[in-house]
Amino acid sequence: MSGRANESEMMSDQRRYRPPEQIRWAEAGDAIIVLDQTELPARRVEKELRTVEAVEEAIQSLRVRGAPLIGITAAMGIAALARRAVLEAEAAGGTLSIDDLAERLRAWCDRLEQARPTAVNLVWAIDRMRRAAALTAAGSTGGTIASAAALAEGLRAEAGDILEEDRMMCRRIGEHAAALLRDGSSVITHCNAGALATGGIGTALAPVYVATEQGKKISVYADETRPLLQGSRITAWELAEAGVEVTVIADNMAGALFATDPPDIAFVGSDRIAANGDVANKIGTYGLAVLAHHHGVPFYVLAPTSTVDLHTASGDQIPIEQRSADEIRQGFGRLTAPAQAPVWSPAFDVTPNELVTGIVTEQGVHRAPYVESLREAVAAAERDRAERGRS
Amino acid sequence: MSGRANESEMMSDQRRYRPPEQIRWAEAGDAIIVLDQTELPARRVEKELRTVEAVEEAIQSLRVRGAPLIGITAAMGIAALARRAVLEAEAAGGTLSIDDLAERLRAWCDRLEQARPTAVNLVWAIDRMRRAAALTAAGSTGGTIASAAALAEGLRAEAGDILEEDRMMCRRIGEHAAALLRDGSSVITHCNAGALATGGIGTALAPVYVATEQGKKISVYADETRPLLQGSRITAWELAEAGVEVTVIADNMAGALFATDPPDIAFVGSDRIAANGDVANKIGTYGLAVLAHHHGVPFYVLAPTSTVDLHTASGDQIPIEQRSADEIRQGFGRLTAPAQAPVWSPAFDVTPNELVTGIVTEQGVHRAPYVESLREAVAAAERDRAERGRS
Repeated sequence: MSGRANESEMMSDQRRYRPPEQIRWAEAGDAIIVLDQTELPARRVEKELRTVEAVEEAIQSLRVRGAPLIGITAAMGIAALARRAVLEAEAAGGTLSIDDLAERLRAWCDRLEQARPTAVNLVWAIDRMRRAAALTAAGSTGGTIASAAALAEGLRAEAGDILEEDRMMCRRIGEHAAALLRDGSSVITHCNAGALATGGIGTALAPVYVATEQGKKISVYADETRPLLQGSRITAWELAEAGVEVTVIADNMAGALFATDPPDIAFVGSDRIAANGDVANKIGTYGLAVLAHHHGVPFYVLAPTSTVDLHTASGDQIPIEQRSADEIRQGFGRLTAPAQAPVWSPAFDVTPNELVTGIVTEQGVHRAPYVESLREAVAAAERDRAERGRS
Repeated sequence: MSGRANESEMMSDQRRYRPPEQIRWAEAGDAIIVLDQTELPARRVEKELRTVEAVEEAIQSLRVRGAPLIGITAAMGIAALARRAVLEAEAAGGTLSIDDLAERLRAWCDRLEQARPTAVNLVWAIDRMRRAAALTAAGSTGGTIASAAALAEGLRAEAGDILEEDRMMCRRIGEHAAALLRDGSSVITHCNAGALATGGIGTALAPVYVATEQGKKISVYADETRPLLQGSRITAWELAEAGVEVTVIADNMAGALFATDPPDIAFVGSDRIAANGDVANKIGTYGLAVLAHHHGVPFYVLAPTSTVDLHTASGDQIPIEQRSADEIRQGFGRLTAPAQAPVWSPAFDVTPNELVTGIVTEQGVHRAPYVESLREAVAAAERDRAERGRS
């Protein structure tokens, strides 16, 4: 990965957008420091995570959120815990046995895997850490493990790769989609598929940052996004921090906006894309797509190829989680509906492919028929991974 | 009015829905008692209003809301203040001079007229009270005013008529539109155009109550209605109180609902209807209309003919008020967007007539072309009023 990372660095210039540090290593590499997103937008607070309990709590209580960032947090957290175990043993004047570390590693992985069972990236990232541990073992001199320290090093390298790959994926999505924006373009987005959902510059917001770097003046309308308000709390915050002009609207104001001063384009993220291009994303995305269609505004979905699920033929096969009624009835700390009122609160909705103008992945901009273009994108991504594996 | 009221009473049966007492006279007629809507849905609290300051405060702080109910509150409030002034003078062993009462009356009317300057019904109701005072004076024996007590009586009769006319108007809208519902129908509505916005059984919700009286099983989806949540706070409360099945959704969930389990019909109220049938209503109504159109679900607007403004040719001539940014940024008592984030927050939007399946007034169900059908409805309402004036 490092060769590619350097290549990407070479393209950088003075204007390159640096996202708020969502996550980083503590100085000794024995802890991770995350931006506590539950404190946004009121305060910018960092939290150092030194124990598996702390990493778990940060994921469960949404201090870190967004599928890619959750996976990165688990991976970096595990690597830091391994480093801390090695250092603590050294400080006590001894050395950590490799068996001890492997044992602890299994427990950490098993525990963090359960932190949010629906986030597929979490399991994926933890599986990579498990495989990396096995590879480090097999690759060490003489076929035996040199030391717990070497295992911890291997884990740190793998977590670093996961983070770096995510950063590159975000940037490539941003570069492909920035071509859809001109100087002066206005964008509408829903929820947060920005830097704070990833390790990089986001997915749906990535082209906004890249186009801004290119000198284009871009403005964004951020849907508030009930019930959890990720649009007003997080998207508006990260865009304002980056100096991008952002205007917050309640979800139900998008219609009036399209009717009176329509945005030029809609960019949203995705939680799962079916093989036919039907897109599951945060509740409210479908209503936005219908409005965009009604007003002839292009509607794009931006997500890594890992979001494309070729085993799901169409959107009606995507299971939709129901959220707690109290997020609607008393989501703001006081009762805003009768305490016993029935609530229908799906976490996601499905936008049918005919309302999707294009899907942008790190492989490019894909158009209908999506059955073909998405299959090709996924194949290209697999070829890329195989190449990286050989390099 | 009393003849018509009795006629309407004769149609009543055991099942007739009785709205929560939005407003009523105190026993001595010298105060009014309102249901404090700011306490809903957490608590059902009544508030007795004995002074002009209290009536003004109740209107300004939305303890009573909804254009018809605001007008009724002002009218009944003025009548009660007059009665109280007469009783207080009597209790002090004297009599109130007619000039004194007329003077106070002018001050009350001028003050309450300013309580919410945009609510057209407020000015309309107060004008009726002023005219009634003048008529009482002219009609008294010998061309001079018999007494302050007689003037107070005249005001009470006029306020009673305003309330009774509103009740009848609601019921007639409900009866016309109930024919659009069958046993088992599901309705989606936005904001609150129910009993708690009027003196009667509401406008958009009136057919739900009438159809329920007719033995039809009706269920309702209530949009939460950001920013002020009248849908979840008030519509859900009044429907649940009436025993009507109601489910709350966040505004951005309507799309998923239409896609997965579409309601049979949409009923909304209106703040102003242009001569061509374009409809201004609470922000979010237009988005709902686009969804209904996209899914082939009939979309009806229910409002009295007094809402039809034949002097406004089309919706683009309706001025749209911008609400405070903090209703979005910290509407729930804590910061849910960056404190300085620009917000675009129109109070209303305009639904073009081509998305409106029908407009229901107390005169019937009106269809396109609305330029003709609405003109006829307004003319019929004027004939009705003239007839009542003669009777």
